[in-house]
Amino acid sequence: MLIAKVIGTTVSTIKDEKLVGYKLLIVRQTDELGQVFGKPFVAVDTVDAGIGDLVLTCSGSSARQTEQTKDKPVDAVIMSIIDSLDVEGKTVFQKTA
Amino acid sequence: MLIAKVIGTTVSTIKDEKLVGYKLLIVRQTDELGQVFGKPFVAVDTVDAGIGDLVLTCSGSSARQTEQTKDKPVDAVIMSIIDSLDVEGKTVFQKTA
Amino acid sequence: MLIAKVIGTTVSTIKDEKLVGYKLLIVRQTDELGQVFGKPFVAVDTVDAGIGDLVLTCSGSSARQTEQTKDKPVDAVIMSIIDSLDVEGKTVFQKTA
Amino acid sequence: MLIAKVIGTTVSTIKDEKLVGYKLLIVRQTDELGQVFGKPFVAVDTVDAGIGDLVLTCSGSSARQTEQTKDKPVDAVIMSIIDSLDVEGKTVFQKTA
Amino acid sequence: MLIAKVIGTTVSTIKDEKLVGYKLLIVRQTDELGQVFGKPFVAVDTVDAGIGDLVLTCSGSSARQTEQTKDKPVDAVIMSIIDSLDVEGKTVFQKTA
Repeated sequence: MLIAKVIGTTVSTIKDEKLVGYKLLIVRQTDELGQVFGKPFVAVDTVDAGIGDLVLTCSGSSARQTEQTKDKPVDAVIMSIIDSLDVEGKTVFQKTA
Repeated sequence: MLIAKVIGTTVSTIKDEKLVGYKLLIVRQTDELGQVFGKPFVAVDTVDAGIGDLVLTCSGSSARQTEQTKDKPVDAVIMSIIDSLDVEGKTVFQKTA
Repeated sequence: MLIAKVIGTTVSTIKDEKLVGYKLLIVRQTDELGQVFGKPFVAVDTVDAGIGDLVLTCSGSSARQTEQTKDKPVDAVIMSIIDSLDVEGKTVFQKTA
Repeated sequence: MLIAKVIGTTVSTIKDEKLVGYKLLIVRQTDELGQVFGKPFVAVDTVDAGIGDLVLTCSGSSARQTEQTKDKPVDAVIMSIIDSLDVEGKTVFQKTA
Repeated sequence: MLIAKVIGTTVSTIKDEKLVGYKLLIVRQTDELGQVFGKPFVAVDTVDAGIGDLVLTCSGSSARQTEQTKDKPVDAVIMSIIDSLDVEGKTVFQKTA
């Protein structure tokens, strides 16, 4: 899984019928401190994540193993909102309430 | 999924019989503003996308989860045409009519 | 799928028994003009491609969706020989007869 | 598989129900000497690994082939703790007791 | 598939039970001339490869398509030892006896 930050949303009228009703968020991978780097990708949101949230994304066929994404043409899913990250015993990220 | 821009088409006479009748488009990944970067790849079009369209592509085994691509030897599919992209509350891309 | 150019062949006596009789070609990815870049990989040939041909390769589990590669331990297949590439309305590559 | 070093942990309250009870560790890939490089990713721990351990990680659909990760939305698993690494006949890494 | 060179071995006592008895080798990808580059990864050996051998590796779910790796949590397998590599009609690598 990747640690990623939600940065935006996509809107599409024309899409595969299996995707109707799904929220597709734009995310960017972060390092272990929650700092974004690299280029954006798009993931299906299954946990009601919001802009700015740090999340875990799962890719490939494993992205279809949640109840909501089963048999869907999606290759990335947000399946967790991160509360905190600890690195070598120190809390380096804490979600603000 | 990746945000990508359709830049071209491929023509092939000799191909796996399962691919007969499919439109294979050349796309390049874009960033969250719709600016292309990186090298091109080829995706099966399932939504009648056109040159210049911003689309979502799905890769790997998930690319075979649309009705049209089931059991096909394809590893990337265009399954959505993007209307707009919002980043941190601002609309950064809007499809022109 | 990737646009790739066939540059060579591999010969192996010791191999998984499921691979006996298959032609494994060395290819390199190309850009949308057919210019090679990056490092080589090896793909099973299902369309009788030759050295110098521009082809489409399919990777991952999708590489096992042709008749010849079903249930084989192969992660890349050549499943099309490219006749021509068009980018933004212009023909940028044309296979020579 | 990748050689990776465990560097931290993630805590999530909101997550896919299939992930409840799983330990998700932050790891970074290492070279053949056990030196970390590159960006972190997150893997399910199935072998009770600890911070600082050198481990093997398995990605993609193969990450779902352990008893604990079957049918789970996870794309990386720690399925081995490395005791030692030998390169060209020399022991280049030895786990300290 | 990738052309890779076997450079070392890994030893693990604590591991998923499905991996007991398997030889896990450290390999590095090579170019079409057999020159290594990039970072190492680990692959299950199914062909009794030795240090210094040039091999073909298969990744992802396809790595589970050999008899030995079926249903195993492995994402890379060595399924062939390379005898020779030909590039544009010239033999650029020949295994020494």
